[in-house]
Amino acid sequence: MNRQITIKDIAKEAGVSISTVSRVVNSSLPVKKETKEKVLKAIEKLNYYPDSLARSLRVGYTKTIGIIIPNIANPFFATIVRGAEDFLRSKGFSLMICNSDNNIVEEKKLFKTLIEKKVDGILYSGIGDHVESLINKNVKTVFIDRIIKSNKFSYVCSNNYNAMYKLLEYLYNSNHRKFIFISGQKEIFSAAERLRAFQDFANEYKIDFKIYEGEYTHESGLSVAKKIKNLPDVVVCANDLLAYGVIEHFKSKGLKVPKDVSVTGYDDIAFSKMFSPPLTTVKQPIYEMGKTAGEMIFTILSKKIDHIPVKQFENEIIIRESTRRRN
Amino acid sequence: MNRQITIKDIAKEAGVSISTVSRVVNSSLPVKKETKEKVLKAIEKLNYYPDSLARSLRVGYTKTIGIIIPNIANPFFATIVRGAEDFLRSKGFSLMICNSDNNIVEEKKLFKTLIEKKVDGILYSGIGDHVESLINKNVKTVFIDRIIKSNKFSYVCSNNYNAMYKLLEYLYNSNHRKFIFISGQKEIFSAAERLRAFQDFANEYKIDFKIYEGEYTHESGLSVAKKIKNLPDVVVCANDLLAYGVIEHFKSKGLKVPKDVSVTGYDDIAFSKMFSPPLTTVKQPIYEMGKTAGEMIFTILSKKIDHIPVKQFENEIIIRESTRRRN
Repeated sequence: MNRQITIKDIAKEAGVSISTVSRVVNSSLPVKKETKEKVLKAIEKLNYYPDSLARSLRVGYTKTIGIIIPNIANPFFATIVRGAEDFLRSKGFSLMICNSDNNIVEEKKLFKTLIEKKVDGILYSGIGDHVESLINKNVKTVFIDRIIKSNKFSYVCSNNYNAMYKLLEYLYNSNHRKFIFISGQKEIFSAAERLRAFQDFANEYKIDFKIYEGEYTHESGLSVAKKIKNLPDVVVCANDLLAYGVIEHFKSKGLKVPKDVSVTGYDDIAFSKMFSPPLTTVKQPIYEMGKTAGEMIFTILSKKIDHIPVKQFENEIIIRESTRRRN
Repeated sequence: MNRQITIKDIAKEAGVSISTVSRVVNSSLPVKKETKEKVLKAIEKLNYYPDSLARSLRVGYTKTIGIIIPNIANPFFATIVRGAEDFLRSKGFSLMICNSDNNIVEEKKLFKTLIEKKVDGILYSGIGDHVESLINKNVKTVFIDRIIKSNKFSYVCSNNYNAMYKLLEYLYNSNHRKFIFISGQKEIFSAAERLRAFQDFANEYKIDFKIYEGEYTHESGLSVAKKIKNLPDVVVCANDLLAYGVIEHFKSKGLKVPKDVSVTGYDDIAFSKMFSPPLTTVKQPIYEMGKTAGEMIFTILSKKIDHIPVKQFENEIIIRESTRRRN
């Protein structure tokens, strides 16, 4: 059958009025149980798909949320997306996914595309404050793992500053004195916060240190590690992927981690416990952060509110075998 | 400004006719360069978003593709999605992502939702043949890493049978004689093909063997490994995540891989080279498979064809340190 099945066909098949079918399809008004079953049977039999697109023009929503992240191939973001999609799917929402590679020009284009496609809201983990100007105020936005100054938006993140500071104190207490810190791009909120913790720690504890700026990738860890001339006691990396790259470079030079040098990460993505050596890092509740972002956008839309207060998770220090107590 | 900006406002601002604005916005007919620039400037100034939703009702497409995968938190699928989204984004398409956990009931619901949301096509990596009955013939579907008997669809996959057979011959030639094979769910095409290769190999080479059925997850590797009573020469796992779980279990029992037992995986996800020990596995061109799926659906839509021939990639055996030549 090539002709599009319409609500009229369903009404005829079920032997009810068109408005009754409409009530069932849109769950708009109550319908007697037997009548509802007749309608559902007809829908099943004729393989009818209610036209969501036409309907969303009528009721003003698409039940679609957009998510802009740097890269789904980074397990941190894959887990964020899984958490968000699990929650949203349970509420009948779909998730449109966009990779930006932390590129501002691309991010702007993606916001435009998502707004054009009439998403009901946007989950956003991007580079910085530039979005304030471009976000159409009709599209609700929840920032994930990022906070900007504006109070127009909603935020879910974790306490990057505190956990990084605690990790550094742990390293100090296990007799590390010479530090190298490899940060992420400073425009990214989480990277700026972890760097700020390191700078405060370095001032407070009068350690010997050097800072390199990298990116949150394995490749960046490899390339920054090549620049290290004098081996420190520990290389503190702003995320796990950076640490993987640094350790891979050290291994290729015949250096042993942690015997010759300690290395730490941040995130505790699933592979860090299986890494060789298992990585000392900071565990973020990644899946919960994604799920919470989904819950927040859903609450904002269903209660028709502008934004909700920042939801901040605490992180946990995880000591494994990529660090050791020095003598 | 709260009122919705329309094409009329743009025409007024730019001092051109409505049909000229329409030509620019829809790229439908050529427009003089200076005129086009005036229109684009007005669009920028008034912060105008063309209404894609209304437009897609007129021209009959949404420039949205749905993708159904078991789990985005599995790096294999995250890389597939990245490949597909990179290509589709370059063509102005967006990707709607759905996780099914290989659950048939969920998959059916997701097909229904995507069809209701008027996606132009579906990329699908799911459990089996059940979809033939439910796919609306108006929605073009490309199967990823799966082949079913129907010739109504398009397929991108890799040669699972050949590569698994070659890996097994390599193991035989390095003096492994007692094999355990842990398969994925048999309903999944790739799992069935890898299992078929193992069965043919076992018959041909008269080895000692035992087969367990697991799932493509780290947790499944852990739990199946616990059932192993007599240590074989090698545990051949149907994917890398299974192998990670098996090795983790062996480590917890004080067994050394590969000294006490060899273990192999399949996929070569990014972490397998960093694993402890680095994993012997089969490399699939995962990103290219995702990108090719995006290209195929785009070709099908833009050339208005029903389907295109199967695109099959060859795989590569990667020997690392989780296997050794036995004496």
